[in-house]
Amino acid sequence: LRWSAVTVDNGTMTTVHDVGEFGLIDRLARIVADARLDAPTAPGFRMRLGIGDDAAAWHADDGVMVTTTDTMVEGVHFAQGTTPWRDVGWKVMAANLSDIAAMGALPLHALVTLGLPGETLLSVVEEMYYGMLEACDRYRLLLVGGDTVSAFNLFISVTVTGRCTSGPLTRSAARPGDAIGVTGSMGGSAGGLRLLQSPDSDTLQGSAAQVLAQAHRRPAPRLEAGQHLVRAGIRCAMDISDGLRADVAKLALASGVGARVQAAQVPVEPCLTELLPKEALQLALNGGEEYELLFTGRPEVVQRIVRELPGAALIGEVTADTPGSVVVIDEDGTELSVMRLGWDHLR
Amino acid sequence: LRWSAVTVDNGTMTTVHDVGEFGLIDRLARIVADARLDAPTAPGFRMRLGIGDDAAAWHADDGVMVTTTDTMVEGVHFAQGTTPWRDVGWKVMAANLSDIAAMGALPLHALVTLGLPGETLLSVVEEMYYGMLEACDRYRLLLVGGDTVSAFNLFISVTVTGRCTSGPLTRSAARPGDAIGVTGSMGGSAGGLRLLQSPDSDTLQGSAAQVLAQAHRRPAPRLEAGQHLVRAGIRCAMDISDGLRADVAKLALASGVGARVQAAQVPVEPCLTELLPKEALQLALNGGEEYELLFTGRPEVVQRIVRELPGAALIGEVTADTPGSVVVIDEDGTELSVMRLGWDHLR
Repeated sequence: LRWSAVTVDNGTMTTVHDVGEFGLIDRLARIVADARLDAPTAPGFRMRLGIGDDAAAWHADDGVMVTTTDTMVEGVHFAQGTTPWRDVGWKVMAANLSDIAAMGALPLHALVTLGLPGETLLSVVEEMYYGMLEACDRYRLLLVGGDTVSAFNLFISVTVTGRCTSGPLTRSAARPGDAIGVTGSMGGSAGGLRLLQSPDSDTLQGSAAQVLAQAHRRPAPRLEAGQHLVRAGIRCAMDISDGLRADVAKLALASGVGARVQAAQVPVEPCLTELLPKEALQLALNGGEEYELLFTGRPEVVQRIVRELPGAALIGEVTADTPGSVVVIDEDGTELSVMRLGWDHLR
Repeated sequence: LRWSAVTVDNGTMTTVHDVGEFGLIDRLARIVADARLDAPTAPGFRMRLGIGDDAAAWHADDGVMVTTTDTMVEGVHFAQGTTPWRDVGWKVMAANLSDIAAMGALPLHALVTLGLPGETLLSVVEEMYYGMLEACDRYRLLLVGGDTVSAFNLFISVTVTGRCTSGPLTRSAARPGDAIGVTGSMGGSAGGLRLLQSPDSDTLQGSAAQVLAQAHRRPAPRLEAGQHLVRAGIRCAMDISDGLRADVAKLALASGVGARVQAAQVPVEPCLTELLPKEALQLALNGGEEYELLFTGRPEVVQRIVRELPGAALIGEVTADTPGSVVVIDEDGTELSVMRLGWDHLR
């Protein structure tokens, strides 16, 4: 199934009110069935019941299971102008899968809840579903059920369950003397959002701009990198969703340690440096929705990972400083910033 | 911990905007920790990581796991006038647990997503959490994480995972010749809502009115009844959430069978008959949010369950009629109604 070839009739004005709850659920269940997703790669898993009963059911062998949930609200987490509906579906699934990756787990299945105003176009719902199914197909998980509710504003809430291939990677296992690593370059998603929000549509011309826009619209959860970390013996990791600096602070706080980050060692997305040179470092340090993994481990282990895993970099060290404190240092050894907590969605 | 003794300071006007996302999450994590919930009773389960990491993690022995999700939106599924916030928390948890009961499973844990306008009072969020924790405490499950997002309208979305003690009970296992049973009396919740919506506050006077109001505000998921059905050898069940008649139709459709329901055998909540005698049967047949279980099985098995399980009743039979068709028959043998599908939330 080539997902780019799956088209939705965006011309019709059929709403979810027109087809009703049962019509909508039937339609979505058929879309999922037609997708014929492959079975998950996580070991010891066998699906028993998917969409259509009171709950989804599966067999699980002895092992560590993980579950996470992530929600996007229209007008808060995305806007129609910058994110097509299919990308909204991809992104909410990717946000959950990024958490699964950060646990060192592989995904099994997803439950999807849609909150829909009655006037929502059916084609909008279908586009979101295809976006989610593209991600399910790419990252090998099943879409097994959910809930469809009436709401005043559109929202989409996804819960993903996965299975660890070893002990879970936690935020609380960093120790002073550990090196800090990241699995890839920073700032691409924030740079892409900056370009997409620009009133000048010419800013999206050129391949560098397209790379950044894609980083924002189609973030890639780093499941394979998470598995690489597990195999390398890493025990401490989290995904970078609120910005590198803020998430280093969260990891440090959870571990009861401090952190020093060398700004010059932070890998900045090259297309970002090309297009927005003045803001590139600031966006790399603070831009959200990155979905690379942040991890710590003994310096020789992190150095080996940097050699083996394309894009990975060693960016600093864990210290015995005040828990949750992060010092960012520039090339001259000057302290650029000190902080403790990051972006606050509710303020 | 006596839950009724847990009070929230409803006098202060602190909003979620005032405490911010991290302040709110800290507060809720502390409330959950202080609740010191007992470990789930389902076998082969051991919690590994709760609130605070990228995902919740647990050990699972070989067995069938189930997962379900249910969401309530302010102004759609509840109104402040008829449902206090603590009851909103209880009800969304109860709705999920009812699905777990209908699978013949016992609950393990819940993830909670709150969509909150910035002006939401902190005390409102805390009341909802205490309502959820009351249900977790009563039905032995853990609250292990979730997501808190900014939203224009308040909503609360819960995902519960459980474990079957035998094969899952499904909607699709009814066969012609089976008897149809329910685990308790019908119409209490709908009758309670009718009284709560009455402009005359005197309607809530008296113990019968209080029973109905309680049925609406604090529906009881029938986990023990679900386990009773499993032990008795039942293989087909679902919970009654959209009304008995509509849910019999759904079960019949899923099983590819028809159904005949004897109205005179439907157990009507006695307090409903007392207070609203003219509407009692209609509310018992069509009232939603009941959360009793509907099940089918060989007549002698269903008859034994009716003898053993207080409140249970045999209400009809599975037929080879058109899949999804339900005929309701009154005491004289007159067909009261024929229908195929129930309440449609989106129309």
